[in-house]
Order: sequence, then C-alpha cells, then structure tokens
Amino acid sequence: MASTATHFSLSLPTKQPTPIPKPTHTSFFSFRKNHSHFNSLSTPPKSRIYASSSQVMDPFSPKTQLSPPTIVDVDLGNRSYPIYIGSGLLHQPHLLQRHVHGKRVLVVTNKTVAPLYLDKVVEALTSGDPNVSVESVILPDGEQYKDMDTLMKVFDKAIELRLDRRCTFVALGGGVIGDMCGFAAAAFLRGVSFIQIPTTVMAQVDSSVGGKTGINHRLGKNLIGAFYQPQCVLIDTDTLNTLPDRELASGFAEALLARDPSALAYAIKRSCENKAEVVSLDEKESGLRATLNLGHTFGHAIETGVGYGQWLHGEAVAAGTVMAVDMSYRLGWIDESIVKRVGDILKQAKLPTAPPETMTVDMFKSVMAVDKKVADGLLRHILLKGPLGNCVFTGDYDRKALDDTLRAFCKS
Amino acid sequence: MASTATHFSLSLPTKQPTPIPKPTHTSFFSFRKNHSHFNSLSTPPKSRIYASSSQVMDPFSPKTQLSPPTIVDVDLGNRSYPIYIGSGLLHQPHLLQRHVHGKRVLVVTNKTVAPLYLDKVVEALTSGDPNVSVESVILPDGEQYKDMDTLMKVFDKAIELRLDRRCTFVALGGGVIGDMCGFAAAAFLRGVSFIQIPTTVMAQVDSSVGGKTGINHRLGKNLIGAFYQPQCVLIDTDTLNTLPDRELASGFAEALLARDPSALAYAIKRSCENKAEVVSLDEKESGLRATLNLGHTFGHAIETGVGYGQWLHGEAVAAGTVMAVDMSYRLGWIDESIVKRVGDILKQAKLPTAPPETMTVDMFKSVMAVDKKVADGLLRHILLKGPLGNCVFTGDYDRKALDDTLRAFCKS
Repeated sequence: MASTATHFSLSLPTKQPTPIPKPTHTSFFSFRKNHSHFNSLSTPPKSRIYASSSQVMDPFSPKTQLSPPTIVDVDLGNRSYPIYIGSGLLHQPHLLQRHVHGKRVLVVTNKTVAPLYLDKVVEALTSGDPNVSVESVILPDGEQYKDMDTLMKVFDKAIELRLDRRCTFVALGGGVIGDMCGFAAAAFLRGVSFIQIPTTVMAQVDSSVGGKTGINHRLGKNLIGAFYQPQCVLIDTDTLNTLPDRELASGFAEALLARDPSALAYAIKRSCENKAEVVSLDEKESGLRATLNLGHTFGHAIETGVGYGQWLHGEAVAAGTVMAVDMSYRLGWIDESIVKRVGDILKQAKLPTAPPETMTVDMFKSVMAVDKKVADGLLRHILLKGPLGNCVFTGDYDRKALDDTLRAFCKS
Repeated sequence: MASTATHFSLSLPTKQPTPIPKPTHTSFFSFRKNHSHFNSLSTPPKSRIYASSSQVMDPFSPKTQLSPPTIVDVDLGNRSYPIYIGSGLLHQPHLLQRHVHGKRVLVVTNKTVAPLYLDKVVEALTSGDPNVSVESVILPDGEQYKDMDTLMKVFDKAIELRLDRRCTFVALGGGVIGDMCGFAAAAFLRGVSFIQIPTTVMAQVDSSVGGKTGINHRLGKNLIGAFYQPQCVLIDTDTLNTLPDRELASGFAEALLARDPSALAYAIKRSCENKAEVVSLDEKESGLRATLNLGHTFGHAIETGVGYGQWLHGEAVAAGTVMAVDMSYRLGWIDESIVKRVGDILKQAKLPTAPPETMTVDMFKSVMAVDKKVADGLLRHILLKGPLGNCVFTGDYDRKALDDTLRAFCKS
C-alpha cells in the first residue's frame, strides 16, 4: 500500500520569536481608542487569514488601573473568536459578559480549581447584571476522569437545571476540563455556547486554542469528541500563581518558572498566535494542523500506557518529542545539532526526556495502533525534516527507524 | 418576560401532493443517460436552494432489470447528499460503494434487523471490491436502548477494530439505530463518514433526513447529540415488507398499509422532499425547521412519561399532534374542520388520537420543561394558525389554552 506524505514548511517558534509585523500594538490601540470602538473589541476586522494580536484599553471601564488585555483573534470565518490574555482579567467582567449567550450559565470546573477561582468567575459573570444566573458542576481532578461517566455528570446537571439552548457553558480549569466542557457544550441539545477560562499553562497555550474537544476511551486518548469553537477564551495569567511547579514546567520552559507576569503573558500570547495561525489555515486537521502534534504520538502512548493521570500531558509530550526527534535523526532527515538542542531545552525546563521505564516496545505499538493519525491502517508520524522549522506529517518512512527508536528508549 | 414568536407559512403535504415542477424525471434522466454521467450521479448541480428529485438509470450496471432509484438531493452546500429511494436497491452495490470513504466499514444495526438484512448489506458493500472489509456491531432493539451505555458499545467496537478516520459507519435499522450511529460517527475520532440505510417508515421519511443525531437522557428525549449529515441515504422499500403492521402504521396512513411498492416509494419520496426542502432552508433549526416537529412536544412527553420503548415514536407523535391541534383550536387560531380532518386521518391510519391513560397533567408539564424548544425558561410550541398549511413556532400563547388541552386529555 502506497502511503501519502504531506510536507509543510512552518516557522516554528524559537527561543526568541520574531513578533509578527501586522497590526502593531500601538497603532491598533490608537485606532480603537480614538474611535471608541468598545463594541468592536470582540469583532475586529475579519479579512485576515492569519490570527493577529493587539493590545487594547477599555475606554468605558471604571477600573482603568487594571491592565488591558492582549487580544489574539482566531480567524475561522463565522466561528472566529478572541483570546484575551493578561493579568487581573477576572476582575474585568465586561470581557466575559459580552460573550455570554442567554441568561443562564453553567460553570464546569474541578475540585482543585473551584475553591480558588469559582467565586471570582461567578462574580465576573454576574457583576452588574442581576438577570444572569450561574450554576456549577464540580468534577474530580485528573486525566483519569476524562471519561464518559464523568462527562455524563455535566449532562445530568444541565438537564436537572432545565437549561435550554440559550445558555452558556464555561470551562474553568486545565485541559481536561476544557476538553470535557467543550464536548459537553457541543453535544448538549446538539450544541450550546461555551467559554474557556483555562487555568494551567498547557490549557492556556494549547487546548484552549483550536476547538478540539473530547474524552478518552480506556484504549486511547481523545478518541471521542468534536471540533467545536468557544465564544471566547479568557486567560488570566494570575491563575498560574497557584499552579504547582510541576504543572508549570509541564507547559513551559525554565526561564518562565519565575512567573514574571509580563514574561508569562508574552509567552502565552506568542504560543496562542502560533497555534491560531495554523488552526486558521486547517481547522479540521486535514494535514498542516497535525504538525502541531509533534511528540504527541509517542506522548499519548505514554499517557495511555502508564495510566491516565500518572504523567502530566506536557511531561509525556516532552518525552515523546525527544523520541520523534530521535526517529527523525535516524531517518537522516535532521542533523545532530537539532537533536541536542531539543534535549537541552527540555532538560532546562526540568521535563522528562525519555519515557517511563515501565513502557515497553509492545506497549507503544499497541497504543499507537489506535492513534487518530492512523489512516488505512498506516500510522502517520509528525517528524522534523531539514533545517529547524521544517516539519512533515507522513506515513512514508522506513519502519526500521521507528523500531530502532522504540528499542533505544525502552528496556524491553 | 416578552416572548418572541416566529411565524411561517408552509405548504404542508396534503393527501394529494402536487409534484414539484423542476427538473422533471424524464428530462433529468435523458440528460444523464445521454452524457453517461455515471460519476456525477452523487454530485448533481448544486445551484438550487431547495431539494429536487430525479429518476436515473445507471448505464454501467449489468443488472438493467433492476428498477432505477428515485433520487432526492438534500442541498446543504458542501454537506449535500442524495437520498436513493426504490425497490431492490440493496441489490445495486454501486449505489452504496460510491459513498464509502476508506476501505473499512462498520455496520451498526440491531438484533431484529441483523438477521433480515445484514448479509445483504455486507454483500452490497463488498461485491466486486475485495479491498473493502465490513464489520458490524449489533445492538439491542428499542427506544429504551437509545442511551449512552449502548452508544459506548459502538465506540468500543470501533476502537477494538482499530478503525481510523478513513472509515465509514453504516446505520442499518430504524430511527433509533440511525440516530445512534449518526452520533457515534459524529463523535468517533471527532467525525467519520456515515451512510444511512433506514428500514422503517419512520426512519425513511423522518430521521434519515436532516442530520439530527443523538441519544436520550433518562429525563428527556434526544437531549445529547449533534447535527451531522450522512454521505447518502439508501431507502430500499423492500425492507418494509418485513415490518410489523404496527410499525408501518406508526409511520404511514392506512392507504399505504397494502404495501404497494410504487405507492410506498412515492409517499417516501414526497415526504423526503418536503423535509429536505425545510432542512435546506434551516439546517440548524433556528426557527422554520422547528415546524417539522408538530406534535412532538406532547409526543416526546408521552414517550418519556410512559417509558422509552412502550409507545412507538409515530404513535406518540400522532397523539401529540391531536393535542397540538386541540390547543390551536382553543386559542382560536384554526377552525373546527381542521381538528376533525386531523383526527380522521390518524384514525384511518389506526393511530392513537389521545395519550395513554397513565399520563397526568403533571407528567406532561414535568417532561416538557426539558424540551429542547424551551428558550429562556419559556416553552415554545408548534401550533397551527390560519388556513391549513400555516404553522407557527412560538412561546407567545395563552397559558390557559395549554392547561385546558392537558386537562382535556388527561384523567388527572
């Protein structure tokens, strides 16, 4: 069977990303301020193909001491939405309220996040608007609960509350909450509005952008779900202050572990922009978008193999990235300096650079066989090829390189 | 709270529907035959807004003694699909095979239908194409199994079989199978192709057209699901020959109980055309499409109230239609002749014209409170208003009329 290869050349983010040149922060800011286009904040001009970003002041806000958010627009035609990024955004109720559909809101969160932020979110949703009522459903915390039984608790709650199509779901938490709440919103009454308030780095830079929602099956990650876009994503970088170091490292490089707010906001903004650009070009993952999943094929196998919730997603993908880079090198597609660079960056970030010792070659092969990137029985891999920044999504590779990589990283 | 009303004037099907004038069967047939446009059968010109129909011969088929199908095209832009209607269509493999995506097929069916038609469908899918492999999952039969537990059996099977995104699900059965298989296809790997082969009248004229998929929640019908369109619908009217009278009556009027093939095909075609026209104009049910649900608000309450699987869907909707018409009359919106006419037609079809005696006013009110047509807490009803053929979808009605109708049809 001949395989088809899809090759892309992408400008992947480097340690010193170059800001994209179009609408500059100052000029966009001036335009909006001068024209008092308050209501247009959430509906900027949509003629661009790529995502763009801008920093805006809210001329009507009484709390002018609050920092204005940075906005990254994800351009998906009539499913476009803004990502607000900044410090103290949960104290700026208008950012959320302009995106609430109907008068009733269901916040989906977990037992860890609820005590920290649920009250703040309820306040932000209802402040100054007594007609809005907010209910919540609090799920257990952890990847091991990203399953159908837990998802049903969201439906149960929504139906017991008699929510109708004119309601809004709000995901408050990490990637697991975002994926589950998004899928629940996609399927409840065949689709209601939802808003993402991601509180972990992984959710802020990854799962909140792109509309992938879903749950795990015991045999594989994210096998049941939907492509479904939120009304907006609100990223309050202050929520990272309560995040354990392990979780922060799982999403970020060491340099950001100091939690400097402006460094965090900048890193998140650049990550969102990079992802939004790719998603704008390929929403349903026909090819290009798959390259965002570098390291995920091996990484998902690790998560499933060792048991959901044992390794953080970012940890598993870090080790998976090292494996994908190793395989690319064995194929002769990249030179050794890239292998070293990737390893060094991940080590600096205190992330694992190899799978857990319990993972065997057979475990990898068994789990990877149900990966969504399998097509007509052939597993396609995301691999590096050529100078740094070039990526391929292909099933056309020497099987020996895959076997050699698996044997090199597994004890049996 | 002010309610919003949406009024529509529709040409509802009467006992003697007028065939739509555009492309006539013969001219369309000649065009296609003369130009040997075999491959264009599934992609007719898409400039129309409304669905149209045509009858075509397959110039390459060796079995020219078989009747050519009638085709109703459902025009939904890039989600358009054809409905093939006729006798013996399961013996015309090319109809199905041209719509199969990938080389692997999962047939979802039930214990009643599988012994009758599964072998035929497998033969139709594989005949002349040894590269296609077909697997099946056989679910229990009945509305009471249209739930998440049963749906998970489809995912389990698909994942155990290592199906990938290049596969096709086939729904073989009635409305329950079609709704469940469609939702499974929508959610598996965030969306794979599917084909509908409806084997009951209700599924052939209703659930197979329009892309509504989903499952029941114990508190209400169809509360979890997706809008998801099939690649094609294949309606072999011969499958109705094995249908019990009760099921046939549930979908059709008495005149068709004789099971005359051409009468069946004509009635199904006209029903599909009527529904496809409305769905083309309002795929996601923002208003107009809701009018297709005349009788469903009361009907769903009956199905949920007496327990899924006790009353057939068509039976419940028949009684629900009588109640909706009664309520319209109490509001002064229609004259008595329409009330009589609806009752007479349903009685001729041996369908119930009142809810079961166990249904109470409180049961109706409790179940209707979670109906998907509730908006901002207000239940909108589909009611008749004015001369026959005019329908409204509105929450703006006198509550007393609803109470009076419920009391008139319930003993307590």
